[in-house]
Amino acid sequence: MKKSIVIALALMLSLGLSGLANAADGKVYRWKLAETWGPNFPIFGEATKNMAKMVKEMSDGRFIIRIDSSNKHKSPLGIFDFVKTGRYQMGHSASYYWKGKNFNTLFFTTVPFGMTAPEQYAWFYYGGGMELMAKVYGQYGILSFPGGNTGNQMGGWFKKEINSVDDLKGLKMRIPGFAGEVLARLGAKPTNIPSGELYTALERNTIDALEWVGPSLDLRMGFHKIAQYYYTGWHEPGAELQFMVNEKAYNKLPKDLQKILTVAMKTAAYDMYAQSYHESGQNLATLAQDYPNVKIRSFPEPVMNAIKATNASLLKEFAAKDPMTAEILKSLSDYQTKVRAWTNLSDRAYLETSDKK
Amino acid sequence: MKKSIVIALALMLSLGLSGLANAADGKVYRWKLAETWGPNFPIFGEATKNMAKMVKEMSDGRFIIRIDSSNKHKSPLGIFDFVKTGRYQMGHSASYYWKGKNFNTLFFTTVPFGMTAPEQYAWFYYGGGMELMAKVYGQYGILSFPGGNTGNQMGGWFKKEINSVDDLKGLKMRIPGFAGEVLARLGAKPTNIPSGELYTALERNTIDALEWVGPSLDLRMGFHKIAQYYYTGWHEPGAELQFMVNEKAYNKLPKDLQKILTVAMKTAAYDMYAQSYHESGQNLATLAQDYPNVKIRSFPEPVMNAIKATNASLLKEFAAKDPMTAEILKSLSDYQTKVRAWTNLSDRAYLETSDKK
Repeated sequence: MKKSIVIALALMLSLGLSGLANAADGKVYRWKLAETWGPNFPIFGEATKNMAKMVKEMSDGRFIIRIDSSNKHKSPLGIFDFVKTGRYQMGHSASYYWKGKNFNTLFFTTVPFGMTAPEQYAWFYYGGGMELMAKVYGQYGILSFPGGNTGNQMGGWFKKEINSVDDLKGLKMRIPGFAGEVLARLGAKPTNIPSGELYTALERNTIDALEWVGPSLDLRMGFHKIAQYYYTGWHEPGAELQFMVNEKAYNKLPKDLQKILTVAMKTAAYDMYAQSYHESGQNLATLAQDYPNVKIRSFPEPVMNAIKATNASLLKEFAAKDPMTAEILKSLSDYQTKVRAWTNLSDRAYLETSDKK
Repeated sequence: MKKSIVIALALMLSLGLSGLANAADGKVYRWKLAETWGPNFPIFGEATKNMAKMVKEMSDGRFIIRIDSSNKHKSPLGIFDFVKTGRYQMGHSASYYWKGKNFNTLFFTTVPFGMTAPEQYAWFYYGGGMELMAKVYGQYGILSFPGGNTGNQMGGWFKKEINSVDDLKGLKMRIPGFAGEVLARLGAKPTNIPSGELYTALERNTIDALEWVGPSLDLRMGFHKIAQYYYTGWHEPGAELQFMVNEKAYNKLPKDLQKILTVAMKTAAYDMYAQSYHESGQNLATLAQDYPNVKIRSFPEPVMNAIKATNASLLKEFAAKDPMTAEILKSLSDYQTKVRAWTNLSDRAYLETSDKK
């Protein structure tokens, strides 16, 4: 046997063994993820670290994802473009931030009066949600995945009590997205203000009210020290963050690493929902104990009815403009009707019969 | 260069490549999982298939888990012993089936008047639940993990309406576990009957009532054809199934496969909760459409109060008998107090203000 043949055979054997073992090409894949959040951002930032750690450990170090927070890439709302152009292979953000690029991205985060987190996960994974999201993002060469749920968000911190629809008129409130447009129709003055400036804006009466997330993240912002009324939510009943992946980069991964990545993203998203639930419970208890003056309220029925009706007519207007919007809204609405009947019969009936207020 | 040296070098290269790639020893790990369920059992059986598929794909075929349903191993309630002795490396079942071996296993499935699924996941992963479960199972050389949540279970199918505590007296009902002991104290006659015999038992009045799961799995059992009243739940507000792993077998796995296994189990469990939610919504709609005569009820307040008080005093008795029981019940109760305040403020307030019945 000639040396060259021996070497060729040995190389084939080598490739064959690797192939049997894990189709590994021996290559270490190094990716970068850009996230909207600042460094050490709680819960949201922990979701990306959790995901990257799972990927590293499950791949035994063959797949390393470096996380760049907004202090590094300087563009918290540039994540979509980073991933689209491939400057970053991955991003972590929220789909509704891209409504200026494509209005239909909005519906994959949450909708006012929409589904709770468990209802929405059922829709994403078993009710056609993932397929619709792929349709919207596919045209940009982006793969989009659920990236962690905040749970039901609170309606916000208000300096004055809201007793009627009239109290909304002229109300300066930080509330971004679709909910802001709804309140604007009712006479409020919605604005968006970066998170770092929120406390001062509320303290100096630049705004009269604001919504942020809920006890899980609000407590550290200190709003309870300068606003007395904390309202229950209607506008983000189960806000889901988002992992984005550049499709070309994804296609270059070996199949096992593709699977490791998708499972790690899915698990990190579910985990974030559980962690948000946990932190909300803990922080709410702290709030109640240390700040007994905070008054928890729900909007009176006429106010809720006005907001709900305005929201419904706004959604109808948007559905009339674009067939894709109509398709997504029909899927959401049909699904919610069925799944909500179950929520009312199960968790809601259970809470109402076993845990009297 | 001699041929033998060339071959040796090539082999080293081959091993080196595999080593670099994923610390793989080139070995394919083949495990067997025994599950309580029969073949093609919906939802529960899909959770094990989902888990095994993720493991296979993420490990690129280096870790294969064969699933044996009860028709194969013939011992639906033998899973604990199978895993303890190592006859099977893994099992899928429900922790409360082992209360005869160790009473404390009961509390890792669900507790009457306990937490809903999202509350309970927060407790498992962020509130100390996993640590307590490890303490209970560690003494048997078993690792125990959440294995999928059914969601809130229905209170069951009844041939007659329950209007007072007196109506429970003498009631022959299939209701296993802790809930059965609660009802027994109130004068009912709880029994356990294998699932295959349930329909006939109810049809022939051997029993007057039964609980199974909820719309997700009840519809195919046909109970709605022979019992008119479908009651909302109290006894299993978020029943979590269980993956068990033989600790010695786990320790023999390479670190990357250990991680792949634990992440796959966690994801399959979360996925099952989403799937249960989905199927419940779909099947409830079918039930309402095809069987409009089914009457949905909640137990009247005095009945619920009697059941709740009896449950609380029973739990107290058990806590007094065993320090570990007391420790688990304290953890569950303290956690539930905090997390329930959040549930009431978030999802419950949202449903009550935005989705009037």
